[in-house]
Amino acid sequence: MAEQKKLVEEITSMEEDFAQWYTDIVKKAELIDYATVKGCMVIKPAGYALWENIQRELDARFKATGVENVYMPLFIPESLLQKEKDHVEGFAPEVAWVTHGGLEPLQERLCVRPTSETLFCDHYKDVIHSWRDLPKLYNQWCSVVRWEKTTRPFLRSREFLWQEGHTAHATKEDAEERTIQMLNLYADFCEEVLAIPVIKGRKTDKEKFAGAEATYTIEALMHDGKALQSGTSHYFGDGFARAFGIQYSDKDNQLQYVHQTSWGMSTRIIGGIIMVHGDDSGLKLPPRIAPTQLMIIPIAANKEGVTEKAHELCDLLKAAGVRVKIDETDKRPGFKFSEQEMRGIPLRLEVGPKDIEAGKCVLVRRDTGEKLEASFEGLEQKVTELLDTIQTDMLEAARAHVATHTYKAKDYDEFCDLINNKPGFVKAMWCGDRACEDKIKEDTTATSRCMPFEQEKIADVCVCCGKPANKMVYWGKAY
Amino acid sequence: MAEQKKLVEEITSMEEDFAQWYTDIVKKAELIDYATVKGCMVIKPAGYALWENIQRELDARFKATGVENVYMPLFIPESLLQKEKDHVEGFAPEVAWVTHGGLEPLQERLCVRPTSETLFCDHYKDVIHSWRDLPKLYNQWCSVVRWEKTTRPFLRSREFLWQEGHTAHATKEDAEERTIQMLNLYADFCEEVLAIPVIKGRKTDKEKFAGAEATYTIEALMHDGKALQSGTSHYFGDGFARAFGIQYSDKDNQLQYVHQTSWGMSTRIIGGIIMVHGDDSGLKLPPRIAPTQLMIIPIAANKEGVTEKAHELCDLLKAAGVRVKIDETDKRPGFKFSEQEMRGIPLRLEVGPKDIEAGKCVLVRRDTGEKLEASFEGLEQKVTELLDTIQTDMLEAARAHVATHTYKAKDYDEFCDLINNKPGFVKAMWCGDRACEDKIKEDTTATSRCMPFEQEKIADVCVCCGKPANKMVYWGKAY
Repeated sequence: MAEQKKLVEEITSMEEDFAQWYTDIVKKAELIDYATVKGCMVIKPAGYALWENIQRELDARFKATGVENVYMPLFIPESLLQKEKDHVEGFAPEVAWVTHGGLEPLQERLCVRPTSETLFCDHYKDVIHSWRDLPKLYNQWCSVVRWEKTTRPFLRSREFLWQEGHTAHATKEDAEERTIQMLNLYADFCEEVLAIPVIKGRKTDKEKFAGAEATYTIEALMHDGKALQSGTSHYFGDGFARAFGIQYSDKDNQLQYVHQTSWGMSTRIIGGIIMVHGDDSGLKLPPRIAPTQLMIIPIAANKEGVTEKAHELCDLLKAAGVRVKIDETDKRPGFKFSEQEMRGIPLRLEVGPKDIEAGKCVLVRRDTGEKLEASFEGLEQKVTELLDTIQTDMLEAARAHVATHTYKAKDYDEFCDLINNKPGFVKAMWCGDRACEDKIKEDTTATSRCMPFEQEKIADVCVCCGKPANKMVYWGKAY
Repeated sequence: MAEQKKLVEEITSMEEDFAQWYTDIVKKAELIDYATVKGCMVIKPAGYALWENIQRELDARFKATGVENVYMPLFIPESLLQKEKDHVEGFAPEVAWVTHGGLEPLQERLCVRPTSETLFCDHYKDVIHSWRDLPKLYNQWCSVVRWEKTTRPFLRSREFLWQEGHTAHATKEDAEERTIQMLNLYADFCEEVLAIPVIKGRKTDKEKFAGAEATYTIEALMHDGKALQSGTSHYFGDGFARAFGIQYSDKDNQLQYVHQTSWGMSTRIIGGIIMVHGDDSGLKLPPRIAPTQLMIIPIAANKEGVTEKAHELCDLLKAAGVRVKIDETDKRPGFKFSEQEMRGIPLRLEVGPKDIEAGKCVLVRRDTGEKLEASFEGLEQKVTELLDTIQTDMLEAARAHVATHTYKAKDYDEFCDLINNKPGFVKAMWCGDRACEDKIKEDTTATSRCMPFEQEKIADVCVCCGKPANKMVYWGKAY
């Protein structure tokens, strides 16, 4: 138990210092390492396997809605980035510039893509001619670069991995429908696969994407009561189409501008998984996203039959579709338990000589710590059911956390008191005036997270200025 | 038929101008589009779907040998690139340099990775301490940038997609074994999945990778008789380990340097698929890599029951695991036939009112043009078998092409005559002297492709200088 303690002692407790806890987990669970380039990450096997599972799940969902994958260049010429005014203003201050190719200076600077709207538009103007060419439903998986001043693993890094979908439609309605469809897809994915409940809503103009007519978001609540913007879907109207000249002939042979959307989810969501589910023993992964769902730890592996039994159970569970591994290193069982907990593997199976004699093994749930005896007979069914239960219970626990950390404020005193003293979301009315958003941010550092689809009438007046208000907003401090 | 002719007429014939034929296919089969940035590609859905299939197949084969995926940063600080002398000399002249982040100049220039040996080594020196940490078997899927002067879609572009595996081992023997294991993996993948036969061998010192002790290669022969280096596997010895200080304590507690390998395959191989299999009607994809294996084309789709039957067959084939689509556009059948041929879809299924009455449909093979009647009864089995047959026949056809385009030369006159007049490989003896390689390149533009594992004694003396020689080399003009 000394070893077990030691591994855990190396993690700062959540209550003591949440930020340090997060950094400790990211390192101790071997998700990333820092790279020589400031603000860039080395994503290690355990972290990348998580991303691969996220990719596989999301990609299948995208394709089921008709999306096709493509790959656009890494570089955007400066003149191309400048074509849409709002967009360039939003991104130019934080891009990395390539000025030399080989030994020679370039004639025009190229930025490393911070996002690829301009590249997709430049392509769409060449390939969209007729209504028959629509819709275009393209997506790409890639890395993007934003030269951030302060960085944190997964949450804010100078380079991160993501997918960016870019679609072009014949009508405003089609584009708006796709914008909401993808937001819903992200929300379903977060709840069903990551066990992360989210609030769906629309961003205020202050918070929307550079160049968008409307930005929709899913907002998740972390364990420390801070919000994480977890995925966004943007409706562009025909703004980019006009800037880039993307037109098609409709069925009456009239030239029309296309209507566009874009939507993205990134490795940032891995930060969300850590901060929604993790605890002082480490990472806690929902079974549906966990690269390893069950770790078999043989007890007294040197005793006759133990290793054989471990392998037999491993094969049995593998055949039942469980992602299973055996820890056969020469470490002590206590240390292996701690490692499995640190890495967030949802289930542990302990099997030793006495268990084998009794025809059973011990299963330990990572989410609750509960120990269960399970007979070898029907083990695969038991494990499969238990993984489903853990998945459901983790979502319920996360939902309960959101419920107990969501408050309502009717006036500004109450609002400031809650925002400053009760970590979580505060629901309050807003008049729609940017000045109130600015004041709230200045007074409290909180921002409007979204105007949720599910509206509720908290009061008749704006929580900030007292003028009539009919929009309910989720406010919170955010990552 | 006029429309059909038109589509095909837009392609230059292979005999007339192979380079133009290649460019036409790449565009007409909608694999890529040119981007605004010179030398960069927009990989379109049909091209990217091919890459996804290549990724899926290779990735599964890598993982079966214990490889884990990771992600390293896009940028390499100049000082890090310079750590291994041969390596930096090889790559520095062709990298893109980032000099500004946001509005400020960087303190140190960063190059956009042309390959990531230096990043992996920088990471390995931090995470490898003990013999227990070995081997490290890492791979990453990413894009890399090399500032090439002349570019061609897939074959040579400034940015391309690839995977790069980087491994670290306790011993020279382990590293050498992994180097050959991965070369064999690439060769098997090319033959089994892409139906591309390859020559396996070792590169001469002149042609090896910058920083490697030995480079192994698989070389494929294109339809025009030129060679394509299709995948490489490098053995580094402890050169990088010494430059970066990657050491581990062995079981006797002695510090040792690790031995390393790297190996890669890129989107270049898509150029190989085009040039090995394509013909004057377009692309020709082996079934195992084809994103769509069978295209159903309804004839007289307006007649009762035709569309329904097409969908019924589609569902039936899908359930049998066939990647199938229906062309339901309002184009004429002849045009659809040409499109399916242009895109290289291995099988076409034609079904019209008369067929339905007779309880059968027509299958047309893309590789041979052969038409076969097939009854609806047992269609899924027939199609599955036919796809296997096409796969086998395409590999056999490609093998026959290599066999009839591989020559032997005993003396220099014969060698030059063959190299200049008979497109293909020329097998000839080499003394091992770089001067002979240089002379051959200067006289003929041909290069040594590899010293094949399967050696053969063509003569006793070097084909160039006449001195005693015991190495047989494959020579050829290459992409």
